[in-house]
Amino acid sequence: MALIVQKYGGTSVGNPERIKNVAKRVAKFQAQGHQVVVVVSAMSGETNRLIALTKEVAAKPDPRELDVVVSTGEQVTIGLLCMALQDIGVPAKSYTGGQVRILTDSSHTKARILTIDDAPIRRDLDAGKVVVVAGFQGIDEHGSITTLGRGGSDTTGVALAAALKADECQIYTDVDGVYTTDPRIVPEARKLDTITFEEMLEMASLGSKVLQIRSVEFAGKYKVKLRVLSSFQDEGEGTLITVEEDTNMEQPVISGIAFNRDEAKITVLGVPDKPGIAYQILGPVADANIDVDMIIQNVSHDGSTDFSCTVSRGDLDRAVGILEGVKAHIGARAIESDKSMAKVSVVGVGMRSHPGVASKMFRTLAEEGINIQMISTSEIKISVVIDEKYLELAVRVLHKAFELDAA
Amino acid sequence: MALIVQKYGGTSVGNPERIKNVAKRVAKFQAQGHQVVVVVSAMSGETNRLIALTKEVAAKPDPRELDVVVSTGEQVTIGLLCMALQDIGVPAKSYTGGQVRILTDSSHTKARILTIDDAPIRRDLDAGKVVVVAGFQGIDEHGSITTLGRGGSDTTGVALAAALKADECQIYTDVDGVYTTDPRIVPEARKLDTITFEEMLEMASLGSKVLQIRSVEFAGKYKVKLRVLSSFQDEGEGTLITVEEDTNMEQPVISGIAFNRDEAKITVLGVPDKPGIAYQILGPVADANIDVDMIIQNVSHDGSTDFSCTVSRGDLDRAVGILEGVKAHIGARAIESDKSMAKVSVVGVGMRSHPGVASKMFRTLAEEGINIQMISTSEIKISVVIDEKYLELAVRVLHKAFELDAA
Repeated sequence: MALIVQKYGGTSVGNPERIKNVAKRVAKFQAQGHQVVVVVSAMSGETNRLIALTKEVAAKPDPRELDVVVSTGEQVTIGLLCMALQDIGVPAKSYTGGQVRILTDSSHTKARILTIDDAPIRRDLDAGKVVVVAGFQGIDEHGSITTLGRGGSDTTGVALAAALKADECQIYTDVDGVYTTDPRIVPEARKLDTITFEEMLEMASLGSKVLQIRSVEFAGKYKVKLRVLSSFQDEGEGTLITVEEDTNMEQPVISGIAFNRDEAKITVLGVPDKPGIAYQILGPVADANIDVDMIIQNVSHDGSTDFSCTVSRGDLDRAVGILEGVKAHIGARAIESDKSMAKVSVVGVGMRSHPGVASKMFRTLAEEGINIQMISTSEIKISVVIDEKYLELAVRVLHKAFELDAA
Repeated sequence: MALIVQKYGGTSVGNPERIKNVAKRVAKFQAQGHQVVVVVSAMSGETNRLIALTKEVAAKPDPRELDVVVSTGEQVTIGLLCMALQDIGVPAKSYTGGQVRILTDSSHTKARILTIDDAPIRRDLDAGKVVVVAGFQGIDEHGSITTLGRGGSDTTGVALAAALKADECQIYTDVDGVYTTDPRIVPEARKLDTITFEEMLEMASLGSKVLQIRSVEFAGKYKVKLRVLSSFQDEGEGTLITVEEDTNMEQPVISGIAFNRDEAKITVLGVPDKPGIAYQILGPVADANIDVDMIIQNVSHDGSTDFSCTVSRGDLDRAVGILEGVKAHIGARAIESDKSMAKVSVVGVGMRSHPGVASKMFRTLAEEGINIQMISTSEIKISVVIDEKYLELAVRVLHKAFELDAA
């Protein structure tokens, strides 16, 4: 008998028929003798509907009240799923975040989980019930409803699995696992049986939207065995996210190719090469709550240097405006920007012990005439920024060069 | 400075525009120096949408989980109204039933309020905030969400007014007060400035749907000053529901004419006139949870009697089936029924001191050739059951005979 936490996202519970299918799947696990805790999101479209309502009544909805409204989406799903379970003879009990209780800080719309009281859930599990918990939400010390931010249901699932010391946390989505890259771009992309937390973190941070990045961090930190599965297929083991590197000698050097289209490049030309200049450039941008991704500073000549960074496309105009405002102050010659950038990354823990990954990547791209504009590396990842029009080509040739389609 | 509890029903908060109008009205009261607690229902249509969802996932939705789902309707409204208030510069804070906390028993879908903790609300009022409370819901001793049953938002409003010892509880609806009768039937119907609790109870129980009957009982019991107003008109004092009879010498004998179309008559013919026979007839009907309204037993002749009662039309077939089943056992000759009945009542505390109301009522109906099938009286009400086709005529002639159109 195992204790399993299962998380079902918005599309998996998108309508009454799908909710009944989730109930059947949960019932099957319980019939096998497992204790099951289910975490659910709002039915797909519901959160957007609620947010639209709030925008109709207030120009800038109060964050506390926004959480009151938006948290109803998951509350509806937990009630419906419990009814569906009871309808097929499975005893079930629902919990809102506040009822669990999942105590968070008071940062409405992006709260962080502080503690989880697992006692009431354990009592219900021991009494033979399936426990259904609303994802994405908690309660603060004042008794106000909080939400964890979009995608927070994954985090709820992992946090509950950690608090309950569950044997496994299963994340059900509309894909059947983590792939070597997006199969829409490379049809030969292969589902991975396992991937390490570190690799998953890099993949998630690079735009692979299977799991919310915070939940992966959380799972890694608390050593929660995490598995990604499809809620629309009955078979398949999905992808297991492991703490340990695979000890298999045949372990590939690269696990996957991640990419992100949402990149824009800014270059500050001819800034004086002196201490503190990076802070003078990036400080005002950070103060405006703009996330800067890649940062490159070239060696100087004649005492001045060029400074480049990437931001999300939606932030580009604002960031350029801020930099134009400080240009004279920092003594820069000009600000240039380019909206049509993309980032492609090869990810794999194997590159720690295999030199030559970078050169192989650069050669592969060069052979296709793809110009690399920026490069950034970490211990298990090499990222390049290229012109967006080469994105699909770059992903395809790298996937082939690193032999990811060979099963 | 007064403490006012205002309750807005589903049509009053039926869309974002109306919610913003409610916010403006609340702001006006606060600007006059009053402390305001607002109780809101779900946006109109929302509760039905949620109930429809539950029926799609389960044949017989579990009552505890039904409350979890349905209570989200009011939760959305409190959040939206608080945002709208803050958007126009009025500090506001929302409370779910559980957050207040409104402690109820555990009778899911029809819970009764046990206690209300007024301390947190008072703190917020004293801090200059408008407090917005979700109607219709509470929490039981186990922390489970409960609902008070349909129309329960009126009860929440009155119960809060009682707990806070509010100066007035204002019920905003889509009508501008309590009328002498339904203006759709009698265009001359007049809005009453005041009506007593007893009269209001009789009017409500007879189908006048302005206020939920439980809330009127509650208000009478706790001496809450209750006022019915329109949420769509800016002017008007509505109708004040008073504990005391109006001491005005010109007080009319009759305050209003109430009616109910949803009546069906059952007659059990030729039952032996012996002790216990009424229980033998009504016991099985009550066991099937069918509410019996009027009950008439005629004097007997030759040791047998006829026994008549009225039930809601929707219950008629079930009730007749039950009585057919016990017919032989109770020794009745036959069961007759008629679906097309209506009840018309004249209501007024004035009839306590004015004899002759009944005879005037019967004479008026007789002059129009309307046959009275059943009669029932209380201290402040006379009801007759007539053929439904005469309903409008009866209401009109009675309204005129008792001079209710004379302002």
